[in-house]
Amino acid sequence: MSFREHLEQVCRDVDGAIACSLMGVDGIEVDTHLSGRAGEDEAVDLKSLLVEYSAVFRSAREAAAAHEAGGVAEVAISTDKVTAVARQVSPEYFMIVALRPDGNLGKARFLLRVTAPKLGSEL
Amino acid sequence: MSFREHLEQVCRDVDGAIACSLMGVDGIEVDTHLSGRAGEDEAVDLKSLLVEYSAVFRSAREAAAAHEAGGVAEVAISTDKVTAVARQVSPEYFMIVALRPDGNLGKARFLLRVTAPKLGSEL
Repeated sequence: MSFREHLEQVCRDVDGAIACSLMGVDGIEVDTHLSGRAGEDEAVDLKSLLVEYSAVFRSAREAAAAHEAGGVAEVAISTDKVTAVARQVSPEYFMIVALRPDGNLGKARFLLRVTAPKLGSEL
Repeated sequence: MSFREHLEQVCRDVDGAIACSLMGVDGIEVDTHLSGRAGEDEAVDLKSLLVEYSAVFRSAREAAAAHEAGGVAEVAISTDKVTAVARQVSPEYFMIVALRPDGNLGKARFLLRVTAPKLGSEL
């Protein structure tokens, strides 16, 4: 399975998923699968939001490292319009799933936990 | 119930909770309840980690605002040693619960959702 297919599968299997991306911790997107459920009415420029969130992921990682709290495994950010959950894939990359606020966050977290090591082995 | 009692109750009711804080978004702690379960072996300076995470919360808020994703309701950060989940209480304050990685994150999220409005009405 290519990493693009992994991104697609996560989108397909999580109720309410809008997008799944593989990103560098520097904020540069490697690839993104959009589920097609991201309607115009969402009024959210999802891709640029995910880029912005990569900076949040990076600062969480730096905060945890500075306080010896260990590596950051996961960061989840919920707003009124979108929930995003990110998981470390390798020291340089992470995966992020964006879902509607009523989406299945538990399933998203589970699938990220299962998929991240598979993606990591393909990079 | 004073806001200190709310912090205590969240700690008491969440399996694996180590601390619950009320913080300003500027990173200044208003009050923290430590559950006593935070042993020396944790090797994590929890309070300063939570201060650091307030900067993460702030940057998530700025990212969401810049991209019209709505207000940030919740941010959760999981590391190898500690999981922290923060929820907005008012524009100036948020609550944060730190728990062991095996703690009950779902219960923590639920109690924050229920408790944050109560705390907000007392500030």
